[in-house]
Amino acid sequence: MLFDQITIVGVGLIGGSVGLAAKARGAARRVVGVDRDPAVIAKAVAVGAIDAGAELTDAVAAAGLVVVCTPVDRIADVLLAAAQHAKPGTLFTDAGSTKRNVLAGVAKKLPDRFPYVPAHPLAGSEKAGPEHGRADLFEGRATVVLVEKFSADWDRTVAVGRFWEALGSRVVLMNADEHDKVLAVTSHLPHAVASAVAGSTPKEWLNLTAGGFRDVTRIAAGDPQLWAAIFEANRDATLAALDYFAARLSAFRTMLEAGDRAGLVQWLTEGKQVRDALGT
Amino acid sequence: MLFDQITIVGVGLIGGSVGLAAKARGAARRVVGVDRDPAVIAKAVAVGAIDAGAELTDAVAAAGLVVVCTPVDRIADVLLAAAQHAKPGTLFTDAGSTKRNVLAGVAKKLPDRFPYVPAHPLAGSEKAGPEHGRADLFEGRATVVLVEKFSADWDRTVAVGRFWEALGSRVVLMNADEHDKVLAVTSHLPHAVASAVAGSTPKEWLNLTAGGFRDVTRIAAGDPQLWAAIFEANRDATLAALDYFAARLSAFRTMLEAGDRAGLVQWLTEGKQVRDALGT
Repeated sequence: MLFDQITIVGVGLIGGSVGLAAKARGAARRVVGVDRDPAVIAKAVAVGAIDAGAELTDAVAAAGLVVVCTPVDRIADVLLAAAQHAKPGTLFTDAGSTKRNVLAGVAKKLPDRFPYVPAHPLAGSEKAGPEHGRADLFEGRATVVLVEKFSADWDRTVAVGRFWEALGSRVVLMNADEHDKVLAVTSHLPHAVASAVAGSTPKEWLNLTAGGFRDVTRIAAGDPQLWAAIFEANRDATLAALDYFAARLSAFRTMLEAGDRAGLVQWLTEGKQVRDALGT
Repeated sequence: MLFDQITIVGVGLIGGSVGLAAKARGAARRVVGVDRDPAVIAKAVAVGAIDAGAELTDAVAAAGLVVVCTPVDRIADVLLAAAQHAKPGTLFTDAGSTKRNVLAGVAKKLPDRFPYVPAHPLAGSEKAGPEHGRADLFEGRATVVLVEKFSADWDRTVAVGRFWEALGSRVVLMNADEHDKVLAVTSHLPHAVASAVAGSTPKEWLNLTAGGFRDVTRIAAGDPQLWAAIFEANRDATLAALDYFAARLSAFRTMLEAGDRAGLVQWLTEGKQVRDALGT
Protein backbone atom coordinates (compact mmCIF):
# COMPACT_ATOMS: atom_id res chain seq x y z
CA MET A 1 0.00 0.00 0.00
CA LEU A 2 1.70 3.19 -1.19
CA PHE A 3 -0.79 5.64 0.34
CA ASP A 4 -3.30 5.34 3.14
CA GLN A 5 -5.56 7.85 1.36
CA ILE A 6 -5.48 9.50 -2.03
CA THR A 7 -7.81 12.21 -3.24
CA ILE A 8 -8.87 12.44 -6.86
CA VAL A 9 -10.09 15.81 -8.05
CA GLY A 10 -12.24 15.44 -11.17
CA VAL A 11 -13.75 11.98 -11.20
CA GLY A 12 -14.40 11.47 -14.91
CA LEU A 13 -13.12 8.61 -17.04
CA ILE A 14 -9.48 9.24 -16.12
CA GLY A 15 -10.09 10.09 -12.46
CA GLY A 16 -12.43 7.12 -12.11
CA SER A 17 -9.84 4.83 -13.66
CA VAL A 18 -7.16 6.14 -11.30
CA GLY A 19 -9.45 5.23 -8.39
CA LEU A 20 -10.30 1.79 -9.76
CA ALA A 21 -6.66 1.01 -10.52
CA ALA A 22 -5.39 2.36 -7.19
CA LYS A 23 -7.79 0.15 -5.27
CA ALA A 24 -7.42 -2.92 -7.50
CA ARG A 25 -3.63 -2.77 -7.43
CA GLY A 26 -3.19 -1.80 -3.81
CA ALA A 27 -1.79 1.68 -4.39
CA ALA A 28 -4.19 3.27 -1.89
CA ARG A 29 -6.26 1.97 0.99
CA ARG A 30 -8.89 4.69 0.70
CA VAL A 31 -9.85 6.82 -2.30
CA VAL A 32 -11.77 10.07 -1.89
CA GLY A 33 -13.25 11.94 -4.84
CA VAL A 34 -13.91 15.62 -5.43
CA ASP A 35 -16.11 16.76 -8.31
CA ARG A 36 -18.24 19.80 -9.07
CA ASP A 37 -21.03 17.48 -10.18
CA PRO A 38 -22.66 15.47 -7.34
CA ALA A 39 -24.10 13.03 -9.92
CA VAL A 40 -20.56 12.15 -11.02
CA ILE A 41 -19.56 11.48 -7.40
CA ALA A 42 -22.57 9.20 -7.01
CA LYS A 43 -21.67 7.25 -10.14
CA ALA A 44 -18.02 6.99 -9.07
CA VAL A 45 -19.05 5.59 -5.69
CA ALA A 46 -21.51 3.21 -7.37
CA VAL A 47 -18.82 1.68 -9.61
CA GLY A 48 -16.30 1.51 -6.77
CA ALA A 49 -13.93 4.08 -8.25
CA ILE A 50 -13.98 6.09 -5.03
CA ASP A 51 -14.96 5.26 -1.46
CA ALA A 52 -16.63 8.60 -0.86
CA GLY A 53 -17.00 12.12 -2.14
CA ALA A 54 -15.88 15.18 -0.19
CA GLU A 55 -15.28 18.90 -0.46
CA LEU A 56 -11.88 19.95 -1.72
CA THR A 57 -10.84 21.42 1.65
CA ASP A 58 -11.37 18.27 3.67
CA ALA A 59 -10.30 15.87 0.94
CA VAL A 60 -6.94 17.55 0.45
CA ALA A 61 -6.18 17.86 4.16
CA ALA A 62 -6.61 14.11 4.66
CA ALA A 63 -4.72 12.88 1.61
CA GLY A 64 -1.19 11.58 1.17
CA LEU A 65 -1.48 12.19 -2.56
CA VAL A 66 -3.81 14.45 -4.51
CA VAL A 67 -4.33 13.48 -8.17
CA VAL A 68 -5.87 16.26 -10.27
CA CYS A 69 -7.81 14.75 -13.18
CA THR A 70 -9.87 17.73 -14.31
CA PRO A 71 -9.91 19.15 -17.86
CA VAL A 72 -6.55 20.77 -18.66
CA ASP A 73 -7.84 24.33 -18.37
CA ARG A 74 -8.89 23.71 -14.75
CA ILE A 75 -5.80 21.99 -13.35
CA ALA A 76 -3.83 25.09 -12.35
CA ASP A 77 -6.82 26.59 -10.51
CA VAL A 78 -7.43 23.35 -8.64
CA LEU A 79 -3.79 23.18 -7.59
CA LEU A 80 -3.84 26.76 -6.35
CA ALA A 81 -7.04 26.16 -4.39
CA ALA A 82 -5.82 22.85 -2.99
CA ALA A 83 -2.49 24.31 -1.95
CA GLN A 84 -4.30 26.30 0.74
CA HIS A 85 -5.38 23.14 2.51
CA ALA A 86 -2.51 20.73 2.06
CA LYS A 87 -0.86 19.41 5.14
CA PRO A 88 2.93 19.03 5.19
CA GLY A 89 3.98 15.93 3.29
CA THR A 90 0.97 15.76 0.97
CA LEU A 91 2.08 15.19 -2.62
CA PHE A 92 0.34 16.50 -5.73
CA THR A 93 0.26 15.16 -9.26
CA ASP A 94 -2.10 15.46 -12.22
CA ALA A 95 -3.15 13.60 -15.34
CA GLY A 96 -3.39 16.51 -17.78
CA SER A 97 -2.75 16.01 -21.50
CA THR A 98 -0.90 19.32 -21.73
CA LYS A 99 1.76 20.57 -19.36
CA ARG A 100 3.15 23.99 -20.23
CA ASN A 101 -0.19 25.68 -19.64
CA VAL A 102 -0.49 24.13 -16.17
CA LEU A 103 3.03 25.13 -15.20
CA ALA A 104 2.46 28.65 -16.54
CA GLY A 105 -0.79 28.81 -14.57
CA VAL A 106 0.83 28.00 -11.24
CA ALA A 107 4.16 29.75 -11.78
CA LYS A 108 4.89 32.34 -9.09
CA LYS A 109 1.57 31.53 -7.41
CA LEU A 110 2.62 28.33 -5.69
CA PRO A 111 5.37 28.24 -3.07
CA ASP A 112 8.74 27.33 -4.60
CA ARG A 113 8.89 24.07 -2.70
CA PHE A 114 5.29 23.08 -3.35
CA PRO A 115 5.30 19.28 -3.80
CA TYR A 116 3.68 19.05 -7.23
CA VAL A 117 5.05 16.46 -9.67
CA PRO A 118 3.22 16.93 -12.99
CA ALA A 119 2.33 13.76 -14.88
CA HIS A 120 0.45 12.57 -17.93
CA PRO A 121 -0.66 8.94 -18.23
CA LEU A 122 -0.99 8.24 -21.97
CA ALA A 123 -4.32 6.48 -21.77
CA GLY A 124 -7.88 7.49 -22.34
CA SER A 125 -11.03 6.79 -24.22
CA GLU A 126 -13.55 8.55 -26.41
CA LYS A 127 -16.06 7.82 -23.67
CA ALA A 128 -16.68 10.02 -20.66
CA GLY A 129 -17.59 9.53 -17.01
CA PRO A 130 -16.42 7.25 -14.16
CA GLU A 131 -18.89 4.56 -15.28
CA HIS A 132 -16.58 3.97 -18.26
CA GLY A 133 -13.46 3.90 -16.11
CA ARG A 134 -11.31 0.78 -16.14
CA ALA A 135 -8.92 -0.59 -13.53
CA ASP A 136 -6.60 -1.68 -16.35
CA LEU A 137 -6.66 1.60 -18.29
CA PHE A 138 -3.02 2.37 -17.50
CA GLU A 139 -1.63 -1.12 -17.90
CA GLY A 140 1.28 -1.20 -20.30
CA ARG A 141 0.90 2.50 -21.10
CA ALA A 142 3.50 5.19 -20.65
CA THR A 143 3.09 7.85 -17.98
CA VAL A 144 5.16 10.95 -18.56
CA VAL A 145 6.45 12.29 -15.23
CA LEU A 146 7.76 15.79 -15.56
CA VAL A 147 11.17 17.01 -14.55
CA GLU A 148 10.41 20.63 -13.75
CA LYS A 149 11.01 23.17 -11.03
CA PHE A 150 8.27 21.83 -8.76
CA SER A 151 9.28 18.21 -9.17
CA ALA A 152 13.04 18.67 -9.02
CA ASP A 153 13.00 16.98 -5.63
CA TRP A 154 14.18 13.43 -6.18
CA ASP A 155 12.19 11.81 -3.37
CA ARG A 156 8.95 13.36 -4.56
CA THR A 157 9.60 12.40 -8.16
CA VAL A 158 10.23 8.82 -7.11
CA ALA A 159 7.13 8.70 -4.90
CA VAL A 160 4.83 10.04 -7.61
CA GLY A 161 6.49 7.91 -10.30
CA ARG A 162 6.00 4.83 -8.12
CA PHE A 163 2.31 5.68 -7.82
CA TRP A 164 1.77 5.80 -11.60
CA GLU A 165 3.86 2.66 -11.89
CA ALA A 166 1.66 0.98 -9.30
CA LEU A 167 -1.32 1.67 -11.56
CA GLY A 168 0.34 -0.45 -14.24
CA SER A 169 2.10 2.15 -16.38
CA ARG A 170 5.78 2.64 -17.14
CA VAL A 171 7.33 5.98 -16.27
CA VAL A 172 9.04 8.22 -18.83
CA LEU A 173 10.81 11.32 -17.51
CA MET A 174 10.57 14.42 -19.69
CA ASN A 175 10.31 18.18 -19.46
CA ALA A 176 7.18 20.16 -20.30
CA ASP A 177 8.40 21.66 -23.58
CA GLU A 178 9.37 18.29 -24.97
CA HIS A 179 6.18 16.68 -23.67
CA ASP A 180 3.92 19.21 -25.34
CA LYS A 181 5.85 19.07 -28.62
CA VAL A 182 5.74 15.27 -28.79
CA LEU A 183 2.12 14.96 -27.70
CA ALA A 184 1.06 17.51 -30.32
CA VAL A 185 2.19 14.95 -32.90
CA THR A 186 1.29 11.67 -31.20
CA SER A 187 -2.07 12.68 -29.71
CA HIS A 188 -3.41 16.15 -30.57
CA LEU A 189 -2.78 16.00 -34.33
CA PRO A 190 -4.40 12.54 -34.65
CA HIS A 191 -7.43 13.83 -32.80
CA ALA A 192 -7.86 16.86 -35.06
CA VAL A 193 -7.38 14.68 -38.13
CA ALA A 194 -9.88 12.06 -36.93
CA SER A 195 -12.42 14.77 -36.29
CA ALA A 196 -11.79 16.35 -39.70
CA VAL A 197 -12.31 13.00 -41.45
CA ALA A 198 -15.56 12.41 -39.56
CA GLY A 199 -16.69 15.97 -40.17
CA SER A 200 -15.97 15.62 -43.90
CA THR A 201 -18.30 12.65 -44.22
CA PRO A 202 -22.01 13.03 -44.98
CA LYS A 203 -24.01 10.97 -42.47
CA GLU A 204 -25.92 9.27 -45.28
CA TRP A 205 -22.66 7.67 -46.45
CA LEU A 206 -21.93 6.02 -43.10
CA ASN A 207 -23.51 2.74 -44.25
CA LEU A 208 -20.70 2.59 -46.81
CA THR A 209 -17.85 2.66 -44.33
CA ALA A 210 -15.71 -0.26 -43.22
CA GLY A 211 -13.28 -0.96 -40.40
CA GLY A 212 -10.74 1.58 -41.62
CA PHE A 213 -13.09 4.54 -41.31
CA ARG A 214 -14.29 3.22 -37.96
CA ASP A 215 -10.76 3.09 -36.57
CA VAL A 216 -9.54 6.36 -38.04
CA THR A 217 -12.52 8.29 -36.65
CA ARG A 218 -13.08 6.54 -33.30
CA ILE A 219 -11.54 9.29 -31.17
CA ALA A 220 -13.65 11.93 -32.95
CA ALA A 221 -16.40 10.83 -30.54
CA GLY A 222 -14.42 12.39 -27.67
CA ASP A 223 -15.77 15.28 -25.62
CA PRO A 224 -15.51 18.50 -27.71
CA GLN A 225 -15.14 20.72 -24.62
CA LEU A 226 -12.27 18.66 -23.24
CA TRP A 227 -10.49 18.59 -26.56
CA ALA A 228 -10.99 22.26 -27.40
CA ALA A 229 -9.29 22.99 -24.07
CA ILE A 230 -6.40 20.64 -24.92
CA PHE A 231 -5.87 22.21 -28.33
CA GLU A 232 -5.88 25.72 -26.88
CA ALA A 233 -3.55 24.70 -24.07
CA ASN A 234 -1.08 23.32 -26.61
CA ARG A 235 -1.78 25.71 -29.43
CA ASP A 236 1.67 26.49 -30.79
CA ALA A 237 2.87 22.89 -30.90
CA THR A 238 -0.43 21.76 -32.41
CA LEU A 239 -0.24 24.44 -35.11
CA ALA A 240 3.30 23.28 -35.96
CA ALA A 241 2.16 19.64 -36.12
CA LEU A 242 -0.79 20.60 -38.33
CA ASP A 243 1.52 22.42 -40.73
CA TYR A 244 3.90 19.49 -40.94
CA PHE A 245 1.00 17.10 -41.52
CA ALA A 246 -0.56 19.38 -44.16
CA ALA A 247 2.72 19.54 -46.05
CA ARG A 248 3.04 15.76 -45.96
CA LEU A 249 -0.50 15.24 -47.22
CA SER A 250 0.08 17.89 -49.86
CA ALA A 251 3.09 15.94 -51.15
CA PHE A 252 0.80 12.93 -51.51
CA ARG A 253 -1.72 15.02 -53.42
CA THR A 254 0.94 16.30 -55.81
CA MET A 255 2.20 12.80 -56.56
CA LEU A 256 -1.33 11.49 -57.05
CA GLU A 257 -2.13 14.31 -59.45
CA ALA A 258 1.08 13.67 -61.39
CA GLY A 259 0.49 9.92 -61.56
CA ASP A 260 3.79 9.28 -59.74
CA ARG A 261 3.23 5.65 -58.77
CA ALA A 262 6.74 5.11 -57.42
CA GLY A 263 6.45 8.25 -55.30
CA LEU A 264 3.08 7.16 -53.89
CA VAL A 265 4.43 3.74 -53.00
CA GLN A 266 7.45 5.30 -51.30
CA TRP A 267 5.24 7.74 -49.38
CA LEU A 268 2.88 4.98 -48.25
CA THR A 269 5.85 2.80 -47.33
CA GLU A 270 7.22 5.51 -45.04
CA GLY A 271 3.91 5.59 -43.17
CA LYS A 272 3.76 1.81 -43.06
CA GLN A 273 7.26 1.57 -41.61
CA VAL A 274 6.32 3.85 -38.73
CA ARG A 275 3.07 1.97 -38.08
CA ASP A 276 4.76 -1.43 -38.33
CA ALA A 277 7.33 -0.27 -35.77
CA LEU A 278 4.47 0.40 -33.34
CA GLY A 279 3.15 -3.16 -33.59
CA THR A 280 -0.46 -4.29 -33.55
CA MET B 1 -25.45 -24.48 -51.85
CA LEU B 2 -25.48 -21.59 -54.32
CA PHE B 3 -22.67 -22.85 -56.56
CA ASP B 4 -21.14 -26.24 -57.09
CA GLN B 5 -17.78 -24.64 -57.81
CA ILE B 6 -16.47 -21.10 -57.55
CA THR B 7 -13.08 -19.90 -58.69
CA ILE B 8 -11.25 -17.15 -56.85
CA VAL B 9 -8.61 -15.28 -58.82
CA GLY B 10 -6.14 -13.59 -56.47
CA VAL B 11 -6.07 -15.47 -53.21
CA GLY B 12 -4.85 -12.80 -50.81
CA LEU B 13 -6.62 -11.66 -47.67
CA ILE B 14 -9.86 -10.82 -49.50
CA GLY B 15 -9.80 -13.79 -51.86
CA GLY B 16 -8.90 -16.11 -49.00
CA SER B 17 -11.74 -14.74 -46.90
CA VAL B 18 -14.18 -15.22 -49.78
CA GLY B 19 -13.12 -18.86 -49.93
CA LEU B 20 -13.35 -19.38 -46.17
CA ALA B 21 -16.74 -17.69 -45.98
CA ALA B 22 -18.12 -19.49 -49.04
CA LYS B 23 -17.23 -22.86 -47.54
CA ALA B 24 -18.22 -22.03 -43.97
CA ARG B 25 -21.58 -20.63 -45.01
CA GLY B 26 -22.43 -23.13 -47.72
CA ALA B 27 -22.22 -20.77 -50.68
CA ALA B 28 -20.04 -23.15 -52.68
CA ARG B 29 -19.30 -26.84 -52.52
CA ARG B 30 -15.85 -26.54 -54.04
CA VAL B 31 -13.50 -23.54 -54.13
CA VAL B 32 -10.63 -23.33 -56.61
CA GLY B 33 -7.94 -20.66 -56.39
CA VAL B 34 -5.81 -18.98 -59.05
CA ASP B 35 -2.78 -16.93 -58.09
CA ARG B 36 0.44 -15.89 -59.77
CA ASP B 37 2.32 -16.90 -56.63
CA PRO B 38 2.39 -20.68 -55.94
CA ALA B 39 3.34 -19.98 -52.30
CA VAL B 40 0.07 -18.11 -51.85
CA ILE B 41 -1.87 -21.04 -53.30
CA ALA B 42 -0.12 -23.38 -50.87
CA LYS B 43 -0.98 -21.15 -47.90
CA ALA B 44 -4.60 -20.81 -49.06
CA VAL B 45 -4.93 -24.59 -49.29
CA ALA B 46 -3.27 -25.00 -45.90
CA VAL B 47 -5.76 -22.72 -44.15
CA GLY B 48 -8.73 -24.24 -45.98
CA ALA B 49 -9.55 -21.11 -47.98
CA ILE B 50 -9.46 -23.08 -51.23
CA ASP B 51 -9.68 -26.77 -52.05
CA ALA B 52 -7.04 -26.58 -54.75
CA GLY B 53 -5.08 -24.27 -57.01
CA ALA B 54 -5.37 -24.31 -60.78
CA GLU B 55 -4.43 -22.42 -63.92
CA LEU B 56 -6.84 -19.68 -64.96
CA THR B 57 -7.94 -21.56 -68.10
CA ASP B 58 -9.11 -24.70 -66.32
CA ALA B 59 -10.37 -22.93 -63.22
CA VAL B 60 -12.65 -20.60 -65.17
CA ALA B 61 -14.03 -23.33 -67.43
CA ALA B 62 -15.18 -25.37 -64.45
CA ALA B 63 -16.68 -22.56 -62.34
CA GLY B 64 -20.25 -21.41 -61.87
CA LEU B 65 -18.94 -18.12 -60.47
CA VAL B 66 -15.55 -16.45 -60.86
CA VAL B 67 -14.65 -13.94 -58.13
CA VAL B 68 -11.74 -11.67 -59.09
CA CYS B 69 -9.92 -10.52 -55.95
CA THR B 70 -6.69 -9.17 -57.42
CA PRO B 71 -5.34 -5.64 -56.89
CA VAL B 72 -7.58 -3.09 -58.63
CA ASP B 73 -5.15 -2.44 -61.46
CA ARG B 74 -5.22 -6.11 -62.47
CA ILE B 75 -8.96 -6.82 -62.42
CA ALA B 76 -9.79 -5.71 -65.98
CA ASP B 77 -6.94 -7.79 -67.44
CA VAL B 78 -8.02 -10.85 -65.48
CA LEU B 79 -11.60 -10.46 -66.70
CA LEU B 80 -10.46 -10.13 -70.30
CA ALA B 81 -8.23 -13.20 -70.02
CA ALA B 82 -10.88 -15.23 -68.19
CA ALA B 83 -13.57 -14.31 -70.72
CA GLN B 84 -11.78 -16.46 -73.29
CA HIS B 85 -12.39 -19.58 -71.22
CA ALA B 86 -15.79 -19.08 -69.66
CA LYS B 87 -18.47 -21.59 -70.46
CA PRO B 88 -22.03 -20.35 -71.06
CA GLY B 89 -23.72 -19.59 -67.76
CA THR B 90 -20.58 -18.80 -65.77
CA LEU B 91 -20.98 -15.59 -63.79
CA PHE B 92 -18.24 -13.10 -62.94
CA THR B 93 -17.89 -10.68 -60.08
CA ASP B 94 -15.00 -8.95 -58.33
CA ALA B 95 -14.06 -7.41 -55.01
CA GLY B 96 -12.23 -4.32 -56.21
CA SER B 97 -12.17 -1.13 -54.12
CA THR B 98 -12.53 1.04 -57.22
CA LYS B 99 -14.98 0.48 -60.03
CA ARG B 100 -14.75 3.09 -62.80
CA ASN B 101 -11.23 2.01 -63.76
CA VAL B 102 -12.30 -1.63 -64.08
CA LEU B 103 -15.31 -0.76 -66.21
CA ALA B 104 -13.18 1.52 -68.37
CA GLY B 105 -10.61 -1.26 -68.72
CA VAL B 106 -13.11 -3.79 -70.03
CA ALA B 107 -15.34 -1.42 -72.03
CA LYS B 108 -15.57 -2.39 -75.71
CA LYS B 109 -13.30 -5.37 -75.07
CA LEU B 110 -15.83 -7.68 -73.44
CA PRO B 111 -18.92 -8.89 -75.30
CA ASP B 112 -21.94 -6.70 -74.56
CA ARG B 113 -23.73 -9.50 -72.78
CA PHE B 114 -20.72 -10.71 -70.80
CA PRO B 115 -22.08 -11.80 -67.40
CA TYR B 116 -19.93 -9.60 -65.13
CA VAL B 117 -21.60 -8.04 -62.09
CA PRO B 118 -19.05 -5.73 -60.43
CA ALA B 119 -19.04 -5.72 -56.63
CA HIS B 120 -17.12 -4.29 -53.68
CA PRO B 121 -17.42 -5.86 -50.26
CA LEU B 122 -16.57 -3.11 -47.75
CA ALA B 123 -14.29 -5.21 -45.62
CA GLY B 124 -10.57 -5.66 -45.35
CA SER B 125 -7.58 -5.54 -43.10
CA GLU B 126 -4.17 -3.95 -42.96
CA LYS B 127 -2.80 -7.48 -43.07
CA ALA B 128 -2.08 -9.37 -46.27
CA GLY B 129 -2.27 -12.98 -47.42
CA PRO B 130 -4.81 -15.82 -47.16
CA GLU B 131 -3.36 -16.83 -43.79
CA HIS B 132 -4.99 -13.69 -42.37
CA GLY B 133 -8.29 -14.38 -44.10
CA ARG B 134 -11.42 -14.76 -41.96
CA ALA B 135 -14.65 -16.60 -42.64
CA ASP B 136 -16.53 -13.79 -40.88
CA LEU B 137 -14.81 -10.91 -42.68
CA PHE B 138 -17.97 -9.92 -44.56
CA GLU B 139 -20.45 -10.44 -41.75
CA GLY B 140 -22.57 -7.36 -41.17
CA ARG B 141 -20.61 -5.38 -43.80
CA ALA B 142 -22.06 -3.74 -46.89
CA THR B 143 -21.25 -5.11 -50.33
CA VAL B 144 -21.83 -2.65 -53.13
CA VAL B 145 -23.22 -4.45 -56.19
CA LEU B 146 -23.00 -2.32 -59.28
CA VAL B 147 -25.82 -1.45 -61.57
CA GLU B 148 -23.95 -0.99 -64.84
CA LYS B 149 -24.11 -2.05 -68.43
CA PHE B 150 -22.68 -5.52 -67.79
CA SER B 151 -24.86 -6.23 -64.80
CA ALA B 152 -28.08 -4.76 -66.14
CA ASP B 153 -29.45 -8.30 -66.37
CA TRP B 154 -31.74 -8.77 -63.38
CA ASP B 155 -31.19 -12.50 -62.93
CA ARG B 156 -27.41 -12.12 -62.89
CA THR B 157 -27.56 -9.21 -60.50
CA VAL B 158 -29.73 -11.25 -58.13
CA ALA B 159 -27.48 -14.32 -58.41
CA VAL B 160 -24.29 -12.36 -57.66
CA GLY B 161 -25.99 -10.30 -54.95
CA ARG B 162 -27.22 -13.51 -53.31
CA PHE B 163 -23.64 -14.81 -53.30
CA TRP B 164 -22.28 -11.78 -51.43
CA GLU B 165 -25.29 -11.98 -49.14
CA ALA B 166 -24.52 -15.63 -48.49
CA LEU B 167 -21.06 -14.57 -47.26
CA GLY B 168 -22.79 -12.51 -44.56
CA SER B 169 -22.89 -9.04 -46.09
CA ARG B 170 -25.85 -6.83 -46.99
CA VAL B 171 -26.17 -5.70 -50.59
CA VAL B 172 -26.29 -2.04 -51.61
CA LEU B 173 -27.00 -1.28 -55.27
CA MET B 174 -25.13 1.68 -56.74
CA ASN B 175 -23.54 2.86 -59.96
CA ALA B 176 -19.80 3.18 -60.48
CA ASP B 177 -19.59 6.97 -60.40
CA GLU B 178 -21.45 7.17 -57.11
CA HIS B 179 -19.46 4.27 -55.66
CA ASP B 180 -16.10 5.84 -56.44
CA LYS B 181 -17.17 9.25 -55.17
CA VAL B 182 -18.46 7.88 -51.86
CA LEU B 183 -15.56 5.49 -51.30
CA ALA B 184 -13.06 8.29 -51.91
CA VAL B 185 -14.47 9.89 -48.75
CA THR B 186 -15.27 6.83 -46.62
CA SER B 187 -12.19 4.73 -47.44
CA HIS B 188 -9.50 6.30 -49.61
CA LEU B 189 -9.28 9.62 -47.78
CA PRO B 190 -9.06 7.94 -44.33
CA HIS B 191 -6.25 5.76 -45.65
CA ALA B 192 -4.22 8.70 -46.99
CA VAL B 193 -4.78 10.58 -43.75
CA ALA B 194 -3.80 7.62 -41.57
CA SER B 195 -0.63 7.20 -43.59
CA ALA B 196 0.15 10.92 -43.39
CA VAL B 197 -0.22 10.87 -39.59
CA ALA B 198 2.05 7.84 -39.29
CA GLY B 199 4.54 9.31 -41.73
CA SER B 200 4.60 12.58 -39.77
CA THR B 201 5.64 10.81 -36.58
CA PRO B 202 9.29 10.21 -35.68
CA LYS B 203 9.75 6.55 -34.75
CA GLU B 204 11.48 7.50 -31.50
CA TRP B 205 8.21 9.08 -30.31
CA LEU B 206 6.17 5.91 -30.74
CA ASN B 207 6.63 4.98 -27.08
CA LEU B 208 4.64 8.13 -26.30
CA THR B 209 1.52 7.15 -28.23
CA ALA B 210 -1.74 5.88 -26.80
CA GLY B 211 -4.83 4.14 -28.16
CA GLY B 212 -5.89 7.12 -30.26
CA PHE B 213 -2.74 7.13 -32.36
CA ARG B 214 -2.90 3.37 -32.64
CA ASP B 215 -6.45 3.46 -34.01
CA VAL B 216 -5.99 6.44 -36.31
CA THR B 217 -2.90 4.92 -37.95
CA ARG B 218 -3.81 1.21 -38.00
CA ILE B 219 -4.63 1.08 -41.72
CA ALA B 220 -1.35 2.81 -42.57
CA ALA B 221 0.18 -0.67 -42.21
CA GLY B 222 -1.67 -1.73 -45.37
CA ASP B 223 0.20 -2.81 -48.52
CA PRO B 224 1.64 0.30 -50.25
CA GLN B 225 1.44 -1.27 -53.72
CA LEU B 226 -2.23 -2.19 -53.33
CA TRP B 227 -3.10 1.25 -52.04
CA ALA B 228 -1.09 3.20 -54.60
CA ALA B 229 -3.10 1.33 -57.24
CA ILE B 230 -6.39 2.19 -55.50
CA PHE B 231 -5.51 5.88 -55.26
CA GLU B 232 -4.51 6.04 -58.91
CA ALA B 233 -7.62 4.15 -59.99
CA ASN B 234 -9.79 6.66 -58.13
CA ARG B 235 -7.62 9.70 -58.58
CA ASP B 236 -10.16 12.43 -59.35
CA ALA B 237 -12.56 11.57 -56.54
CA THR B 238 -9.67 11.16 -54.11
CA LEU B 239 -8.24 14.56 -55.06
CA ALA B 240 -11.65 16.13 -54.48
CA ALA B 241 -11.96 14.42 -51.09
CA LEU B 242 -8.45 15.56 -50.13
CA ASP B 243 -9.31 19.15 -51.00
CA TYR B 244 -12.50 19.04 -48.97
CA PHE B 245 -10.65 17.53 -46.02
CA ALA B 246 -7.80 20.06 -46.28
CA ALA B 247 -10.27 22.92 -46.23
CA ARG B 248 -12.00 21.48 -43.17
CA LEU B 249 -8.71 21.03 -41.30
CA SER B 250 -7.65 24.50 -42.35
CA ALA B 251 -10.80 25.94 -40.75
CA PHE B 252 -9.78 24.20 -37.52
CA ARG B 253 -6.29 25.69 -37.78
CA THR B 254 -7.67 29.20 -38.29
CA MET B 255 -9.94 28.91 -35.25
CA LEU B 256 -7.14 27.50 -33.11
CA GLU B 257 -4.82 30.33 -34.12
CA ALA B 258 -7.51 32.90 -33.36
CA GLY B 259 -8.35 31.36 -29.97
CA ASP B 260 -11.96 30.82 -31.06
CA ARG B 261 -13.02 28.36 -28.36
CA ALA B 262 -16.70 28.33 -29.37
CA GLY B 263 -15.75 27.68 -32.98
CA LEU B 264 -13.44 24.81 -32.00
CA VAL B 265 -16.13 23.21 -29.86
CA GLN B 266 -18.65 23.53 -32.69
CA TRP B 267 -16.19 22.05 -35.21
CA LEU B 268 -15.35 19.14 -32.90
CA THR B 269 -19.05 18.63 -32.19
CA GLU B 270 -19.80 18.27 -35.91
CA GLY B 271 -17.21 15.49 -36.18
CA LYS B 272 -18.50 13.86 -33.01
CA GLN B 273 -22.07 13.86 -34.32
CA VAL B 274 -21.03 11.98 -37.44
CA ARG B 275 -18.97 9.48 -35.46
CA ASP B 276 -21.69 9.00 -32.86
CA ALA B 277 -24.14 8.26 -35.68
CA LEU B 278 -21.87 5.42 -36.80
CA GLY B 279 -22.00 3.72 -33.39
CA THR B 280 -19.18 1.93 -31.62
